[in-house]
Amino acid sequence: MELNQVFPIWDKLTAQERALLEGSAVRRTASKGTLLHNGSADCVGLILICSGQLRAYILSDEGKEITIYRLFERDMCLFSASCMMRSIQFDVTLEVEKDAELWLIPADTYKGIMEKSAAVANYTNELMASRFSEVMWLVEQVMWKSFDKRLAAFLLEESTLDNSDTLTITHDKIAAHMGTAREVVTRMLRYFQSEGMVSLSRGSVKLTDRKHLEELAR
Amino acid sequence: MELNQVFPIWDKLTAQERALLEGSAVRRTASKGTLLHNGSADCVGLILICSGQLRAYILSDEGKEITIYRLFERDMCLFSASCMMRSIQFDVTLEVEKDAELWLIPADTYKGIMEKSAAVANYTNELMASRFSEVMWLVEQVMWKSFDKRLAAFLLEESTLDNSDTLTITHDKIAAHMGTAREVVTRMLRYFQSEGMVSLSRGSVKLTDRKHLEELAR
Repeated sequence: MELNQVFPIWDKLTAQERALLEGSAVRRTASKGTLLHNGSADCVGLILICSGQLRAYILSDEGKEITIYRLFERDMCLFSASCMMRSIQFDVTLEVEKDAELWLIPADTYKGIMEKSAAVANYTNELMASRFSEVMWLVEQVMWKSFDKRLAAFLLEESTLDNSDTLTITHDKIAAHMGTAREVVTRMLRYFQSEGMVSLSRGSVKLTDRKHLEELAR
Repeated sequence: MELNQVFPIWDKLTAQERALLEGSAVRRTASKGTLLHNGSADCVGLILICSGQLRAYILSDEGKEITIYRLFERDMCLFSASCMMRSIQFDVTLEVEKDAELWLIPADTYKGIMEKSAAVANYTNELMASRFSEVMWLVEQVMWKSFDKRLAAFLLEESTLDNSDTLTITHDKIAAHMGTAREVVTRMLRYFQSEGMVSLSRGSVKLTDRKHLEELAR
């Protein structure tokens, strides 16, 4: 994928900004397991994902991890360029989960463009807000987790009832069953999917890791 | 405090932007206990704090709270205007903790300015990054720090905010701040008391050995 296909707001850039990005962005491939960015140890730049999958996590002094979000095709990672904003006071580690093709944009280049372009700054804002939302969701899960357990139990029960690992059911229907909003169900199912517990397709949920679901439901 | 004294980047605004803000911002006083913003139920606008203290927290379906940050003089709150950015997908509740004087800027006005001004957009970015950092700190606390350390840190912080060694606060309230159950707080406070770190009486906690608490919080 070319830079202009993967950079999110290419159409809002000036010719000069496009030239700056094209002149400095570097193409890279990274195989599964590669650490692309390691907390405060480096500032590799913004990462644009052409293909593959990355995992962002935080790491305790004792080496414990928490996955805070995942990045997929056409996502952009800000926190691998956290040196460009002084208010980013936390360290994220980025690991390649599925072999990836990437564009790397140097932090200085992006910062220079963002400081002058309201469009780029506003896009960056939306990106940060969306990561922030993922982390807030994680906080709620961690502090209050009950819905994930309830949903795991529900899926297992339905699967037993249907005598099948593939449930023909909509998110709306699950929400109605559980007395919650469809968005809540969708978000949790996507999280389950990212953890490999289910596989989603239109109108169906396939249980792909019963053991993990059973552990969760307990 | 006038708007130009409390708005963070007044010097980077154009004359037109200043006039827009001055024409739409509203001055307000709010007494302790007032709910200024209630999750997704409203979008009151950006809040600039001239004096007083606000608390931002999230609320579970069952009414449990977690304090995510506090706001002081000259701070600005974005999340009371979360409607202005579609990627803000979480709800924060804002409560007045100490009688406050505020400026309220309508979300539409701010959004209009931010969309055109790289300076305002970049400032907003830094603000969001700084709140994000506070929440990431909270995640680390919750995931990796034992509860005794968190409680010691909480008591010391409250004591600094109140400028007093005697905190007028119930165990229920502490539990709400920390997203845990009252029993957990009571048990740990009794342990602290047996160790001579605090002295408990109805509705208050007196810090009697700051040094020990500080060592624990570290």
